[in-house]
Amino acid sequence: MRLVQKFGGTSVADLNRIRHVADIVCREREAGNEVAVVVSAMAGETNRLIALAHELAPEPKQRELDALVATGEQVTAALLAIELNRRGVPAYSFTGGQAGFRTTSSHFRARILEVQAEHLVRHMQRGHVPVVTGFQGVNERGEITTLGRGGSDTSAVALAVAVGADRCDIYTDVDGVYTTDPRVEPRARKIPKISYEEMLEMASLGAKVLQVRSVGLAMRYGMPIYLRSSFVDAPGTLVTKEDQTMERAAVTGIAFNRDEAKVTIRGIPDRPGIAAAVFGPIAEAEINVDVIVQNVSEAGVTDITFTVPRQDFRTTLRIMERVKAELGAREVFGDDTVAKVSIVGVGMRSHSGVAKTMFETLAQAGVNIAMITTSEIKITVVIDEEKLETAVRALHEAFRLHEPAREEA
Amino acid sequence: MRLVQKFGGTSVADLNRIRHVADIVCREREAGNEVAVVVSAMAGETNRLIALAHELAPEPKQRELDALVATGEQVTAALLAIELNRRGVPAYSFTGGQAGFRTTSSHFRARILEVQAEHLVRHMQRGHVPVVTGFQGVNERGEITTLGRGGSDTSAVALAVAVGADRCDIYTDVDGVYTTDPRVEPRARKIPKISYEEMLEMASLGAKVLQVRSVGLAMRYGMPIYLRSSFVDAPGTLVTKEDQTMERAAVTGIAFNRDEAKVTIRGIPDRPGIAAAVFGPIAEAEINVDVIVQNVSEAGVTDITFTVPRQDFRTTLRIMERVKAELGAREVFGDDTVAKVSIVGVGMRSHSGVAKTMFETLAQAGVNIAMITTSEIKITVVIDEEKLETAVRALHEAFRLHEPAREEA
Repeated sequence: MRLVQKFGGTSVADLNRIRHVADIVCREREAGNEVAVVVSAMAGETNRLIALAHELAPEPKQRELDALVATGEQVTAALLAIELNRRGVPAYSFTGGQAGFRTTSSHFRARILEVQAEHLVRHMQRGHVPVVTGFQGVNERGEITTLGRGGSDTSAVALAVAVGADRCDIYTDVDGVYTTDPRVEPRARKIPKISYEEMLEMASLGAKVLQVRSVGLAMRYGMPIYLRSSFVDAPGTLVTKEDQTMERAAVTGIAFNRDEAKVTIRGIPDRPGIAAAVFGPIAEAEINVDVIVQNVSEAGVTDITFTVPRQDFRTTLRIMERVKAELGAREVFGDDTVAKVSIVGVGMRSHSGVAKTMFETLAQAGVNIAMITTSEIKITVVIDEEKLETAVRALHEAFRLHEPAREEA
Repeated sequence: MRLVQKFGGTSVADLNRIRHVADIVCREREAGNEVAVVVSAMAGETNRLIALAHELAPEPKQRELDALVATGEQVTAALLAIELNRRGVPAYSFTGGQAGFRTTSSHFRARILEVQAEHLVRHMQRGHVPVVTGFQGVNERGEITTLGRGGSDTSAVALAVAVGADRCDIYTDVDGVYTTDPRVEPRARKIPKISYEEMLEMASLGAKVLQVRSVGLAMRYGMPIYLRSSFVDAPGTLVTKEDQTMERAAVTGIAFNRDEAKVTIRGIPDRPGIAAAVFGPIAEAEINVDVIVQNVSEAGVTDITFTVPRQDFRTTLRIMERVKAELGAREVFGDDTVAKVSIVGVGMRSHSGVAKTMFETLAQAGVNIAMITTSEIKITVVIDEEKLETAVRALHEAFRLHEPAREEA
């Protein structure tokens, strides 16, 4: 097998952790696999460098910040190569640019355009281990760019695609994806296998194990991602294409987020363009709107309710008061003690009655639903924050998520 | 004027020193000059990184050590660019590779092959300040190489040549070249102007202000180097082509070195190839021979005396005992309490009697001479170490080095 292994900042936090990473690399190599490695900066290093820059200038130029923080991964890559060499493993460190990562020109949030990694493939075929700095590349002017926080996962998947790897192993300080947060539901179970689509819904809803960008990329190229812990030697979660065995369960997991506030603007004269009129000023204030529900409540007028991050609640209310006046709407009100709960599962497509089960379960648990939205593989409800744990536990039970799936049994 | 300014490790040791460097850059820019900057790693950083590597492996691969330590200069370059940008000066950091430094492939002691710096010239012409990492480049495989300790001076001179600079300013923690070490002769005077040839003789003889490599490069291309302190705002020493005003004095300075031991092999049958037979085994032991004197002492046999670093004295004696047996020489003996004193000056060429003055002065001071060698612009004697200070002070007085040269008066 050809593997790309990625190790995050906590996995390479000090020399002992780097030695342990070398153990993992050697284990896969001794099992007969070809291995390339992608590393992050040692935990804390990126922040240390950014703090130095900010001590000099309140708004350092992003070109220079990129050049500065890119050194963090370069140090890790060289140190891991040194440790592997010491063990007799021929290993070579590469910066993003040297590894062939070409990106867009925008600094600090560049996107990967292509990875020209033929030379890395030749190394791998000869049994060498390329150790590549994650999170970075060069733009068309040859300047160092970084992919933004968490971009190392995306680097790893992109490299896996470029070298034609069979799998991309992402090692982190959590050991996989759970049916829900074990701190809320102790019976939460590790999911052995999850589809890209489900992973995207789980990740963007708060189960932040893996960067959304990297999952999207893996899905586009069908690259399996294996999420594992570099701290505990235990099976993780395989993120892969939807297959037969996945369809057996209607619901794969329950994601939730407490950091929510909802705002309603009621009695807006219903005419084309009102959504733009409502959400334009919010976007200009750089507030991320999440769930949006619109309903015609009576003839000719409509209501819109949406959620925003809790910290933006006051600002959003102020903006909406202005919008109310402009649109001649009736009233604006909100609530910043709400939470969002989603059930996610590709099985929903073929299982009827999932929504019915969800709503009945919540009703029996005494949870009032304030908003509902649905997608292909997800149903989201907004509820009172104080009912969040009750709701998650009831749903976990109702969909029998604590029971091992058949393939595990 | 177009300038390249180079700042060493102590000059960029912390954020305050970096701010001060920005002051100096801005001052030259405001004086109407085009400026490019070459920086070293923050003092201590290179050693910190090397220590990390050695904690992992006793002999880290040099390719990886280069990749590791190169981050030191990269951090300084980005931070200085950030500080300059904050002040409204358009500044851009460049790694050695980005700046166009192509080197030989050997890691940790690479040599510069060429500097393709047209893009930096365009920046400078637009009033931008390129900030380039010293000490590094890339080889033909695109791997990061470093030039060896002190290579930053060489980087600066090479860049100055490549961008067609009028002068290369090297800022350090000393403020110039003195007629001799002020700790030995308090009346030692800063030399305002010195020729490349004299600087080479001064530097290689222990007045280690500037890397010999960089002086050789500057001499080849006629690039003036201005040695200055980044800590004290005072005139420094200009290292440049020999010119008329330099010829007025016979002797420019007195260099010395205490770290010497001398070894004599006596009564070697005099035939072709004996020098090779003597020095071959020493070179194989990686011992650097410095002064060599050979003399025919009687018909058919010869004596050879030479100096080595004091730490290699015992090893050298052991090797010479073997050589003695092979060559059928009479005896081997040595002394590790000697020192070397040299008077240096291009004026010697046109002033007769310099050697006579030197030997008379030493005789009057009661200093016995063990060895003498001469070159075009230098006379070196090996003497008892305990007479070193006496000799230096007497020579400083005899050649009137404490008196300002006419052009300064």
